[in-house]
Amino acid sequence: MPRLKINESPCSAARALDILGDRWTLLLIREAVFGTHRFDDFAEHLGIARNVLSARLAMLVENGILEQEPVDSESRRYGYHLTPMGLDLLPVLVSLMQWGDRWLQTPASVPLQIVERKTGEKIPDMRPSNKAGKALAFKDLDWMPGPGADDPRIAALVAAYESQRSTVPRPVPSAPSIISAADRPSTNGRVIKRRQTSRL
Amino acid sequence: MPRLKINESPCSAARALDILGDRWTLLLIREAVFGTHRFDDFAEHLGIARNVLSARLAMLVENGILEQEPVDSESRRYGYHLTPMGLDLLPVLVSLMQWGDRWLQTPASVPLQIVERKTGEKIPDMRPSNKAGKALAFKDLDWMPGPGADDPRIAALVAAYESQRSTVPRPVPSAPSIISAADRPSTNGRVIKRRQTSRL
Repeated sequence: MPRLKINESPCSAARALDILGDRWTLLLIREAVFGTHRFDDFAEHLGIARNVLSARLAMLVENGILEQEPVDSESRRYGYHLTPMGLDLLPVLVSLMQWGDRWLQTPASVPLQIVERKTGEKIPDMRPSNKAGKALAFKDLDWMPGPGADDPRIAALVAAYESQRSTVPRPVPSAPSIISAADRPSTNGRVIKRRQTSRL
Repeated sequence: MPRLKINESPCSAARALDILGDRWTLLLIREAVFGTHRFDDFAEHLGIARNVLSARLAMLVENGILEQEPVDSESRRYGYHLTPMGLDLLPVLVSLMQWGDRWLQTPASVPLQIVERKTGEKIPDMRPSNKAGKALAFKDLDWMPGPGADDPRIAALVAAYESQRSTVPRPVPSAPSIISAADRPSTNGRVIKRRQTSRL
């Protein structure tokens, strides 16, 4: 079930970054993915101050990404474990690691490789793709308003995107027709002109 | 060519987060992807303090993610544009947005949909996959030392992972045999036992 604890921004990336948008948070998730569960181990592996660690772990529990469970069936000690919501961050973590491998390492300095367990083969770099599995580059994508696009804070983003794209001819998408909101004020009072048959 | 300006951590995710690890940085990149180029537009769309914006943009230029170019061929005004390294963050941004869509929105509140331009079809959620295109879950993946895994800070991560996995039987991967480093001290002086035929 979706959690809606945080925040006011309608954008999914902004909401995600309200949870994940600092260095330590995603590194804590990386540690959890690699099997770290105990407070002392997080502190030791990351060299993070204990008060900062304590606050970050509490925030991740609060937001449903980690939960506290017994370390093992025989133990009374509790450790932090990824919830399904936390495990579902795998695509974010993997694409972040792969970008770092491509741009922030030399071939000789890449420290970890992600392989398919069954075959031992290195997995390919993640890219957006279509349903047929064809990789899509930036120029192959369009951004269209979704059901929640009526928010004026999204409208400003969409308007910027439309004005950038307006000089480039694009085919009419076969997707269902998108919201045809009338012109409406943006957050700063400017009126954003929107075409009734808007194609992003 | 890889850039190696920053930092001391050998982990690609940690290096990437040294650039991207705050809320504003990825939101600036989201804005740039949507066609925002001018300082004033970044400031207006994000409601970010101008001194913070100025520092973040300078950092992104410094690290090769944005560059300053004329806004258009007839203009003397300069704007910020994504470099190839910046555009290559698309998989990170898309997987972050999709995670936010799955966990931080209701179906009715999703503000933006990413579609294939040619067909108008919504693109599927990004997942790690093997070369044949089969989606891989967390349990289908293993993490093996790469050529740069000799760093003791990575060894601690690998050791934690090994101890977690040691109780789970796994097939022998067909990948080339991985580094067989002798036991060596970790960052805190503990000796990490490593099997010569280590299978992560």
